[in-house]
Amino acid sequence: MRNVRVRIAYDGSKFFGWQRQDGFESVQQSLEEAIESLTDRTVVVHGAGRTDTGVHSLGQVANFHLDTRLDDHALLRALNAHLVDGAAITALETCDDDFHARFHARGKRYLYRVVTGAVRPPFGDAYSAWVREPLDLAAVRAAARALEGTHDFAAFASAGSPRASTVRTVRAVRVIPRREHFAIAVEGNGFLYNMVRAIAGTLIDVGRGRFTPEQVAEILAGADRRRAGPTAPAQGLWLLRVLYDEPVLTGRVRGPRGAAGFHP
Amino acid sequence: MRNVRVRIAYDGSKFFGWQRQDGFESVQQSLEEAIESLTDRTVVVHGAGRTDTGVHSLGQVANFHLDTRLDDHALLRALNAHLVDGAAITALETCDDDFHARFHARGKRYLYRVVTGAVRPPFGDAYSAWVREPLDLAAVRAAARALEGTHDFAAFASAGSPRASTVRTVRAVRVIPRREHFAIAVEGNGFLYNMVRAIAGTLIDVGRGRFTPEQVAEILAGADRRRAGPTAPAQGLWLLRVLYDEPVLTGRVRGPRGAAGFHP
Repeated sequence: MRNVRVRIAYDGSKFFGWQRQDGFESVQQSLEEAIESLTDRTVVVHGAGRTDTGVHSLGQVANFHLDTRLDDHALLRALNAHLVDGAAITALETCDDDFHARFHARGKRYLYRVVTGAVRPPFGDAYSAWVREPLDLAAVRAAARALEGTHDFAAFASAGSPRASTVRTVRAVRVIPRREHFAIAVEGNGFLYNMVRAIAGTLIDVGRGRFTPEQVAEILAGADRRRAGPTAPAQGLWLLRVLYDEPVLTGRVRGPRGAAGFHP
Repeated sequence: MRNVRVRIAYDGSKFFGWQRQDGFESVQQSLEEAIESLTDRTVVVHGAGRTDTGVHSLGQVANFHLDTRLDDHALLRALNAHLVDGAAITALETCDDDFHARFHARGKRYLYRVVTGAVRPPFGDAYSAWVREPLDLAAVRAAARALEGTHDFAAFASAGSPRASTVRTVRAVRVIPRREHFAIAVEGNGFLYNMVRAIAGTLIDVGRGRFTPEQVAEILAGADRRRAGPTAPAQGLWLLRVLYDEPVLTGRVRGPRGAAGFHP
């Protein structure tokens, strides 16, 4: 049995999240079904992390054990041919037998995409959040810096699955201006439930003038979810990359990173 | 009664084309209903041209007569508040009483958007065509030049509404390479039914090596639709601009051109 890892891109608006659940089409289930229809074997796919309904991926990593004569390139092509629209494997490689996409992950990089403008954008509403008012990006940037480092992020965690600690290390929170939108890039060693969306919702409120950057530092220190901003909507969130100790899946198929010229 | 003209952007995947037809939501109907719900009067909106289901607009122009005390800016805001998602007025101005969006149009500019790559893009499939093979863009460019000028374009017209002549002037056919896709920009004084999509389908076939640029010149001269390439799918086509003798609707609302950071 080979241990195979894949990078998988998907449009979160077309799935009920990553994790398999009865009666709702998830990315995990779609990938397992593609493998099963190719090999006639039941497999379990291990994803690096769950993403909620509406959240997109350019860099989700998953692994599974498989017995096949296809080489890596042929396996990638064959799996993509069986995979539903809205998901695509963008890299595949056979790896060490003990590699596990979730247990070995050392961090993740997300992007939260915000379009600002007086008019609700008629296109791509599934791929961004929209804010009507102009935002003060200098204030957003200052507040973003206050979140970097090792902190108790309880103020930015929705009540979700129980966890031993709410301390996480966020290596970077960057504000990236683009032509007609901006993005908030967040990289950390791990994230609490809805943490990136709570950070995005709070930083958007900073841009609106509802909080000052200093207040964001106080909110963080206060560890009270009710004091921070709202959880920003799922459609703005993109899982860009899962980080491991060693470089994984550095190969690249010809063509879009899965983004169809749509760069978050 | 004021004569009001608007530029309207819309996501073609969310409407059954521009033109009003019973039982199917068209952009024309949506705009008429927005005006009616604002003013309590029945209006007829004149569009510069019809677009088919799936075809997008960043630059459709339309006009209508209206009795309102709102100034142009307030009217734009109020109409957008009444307009359905997927369409947005991006400019509005009161104009000469005799202006007619269709009769006065002197030409149009379209863009046809093609993503190439081994993997079907999981995102934005409503906004581009996808071609699996790498295309020879130098050949596409040479063939594009052969189509410029005043010609009988019968070879690139679907059987549609009857017309007196199939001669049209195409001022430019340009191939625009982008990072992970390319676009074919076509500007002309008028277009036959499905003409831009037939040009795009034929040029894509040139890129695949099915036709040489010289053969495209022969196909044009032959005036036989069966010899040209297929009609490329609607979702790749964008109406960018309608041209008039004088500049119209040069104002711009703050925010995306309607594209949400999605630039065709």
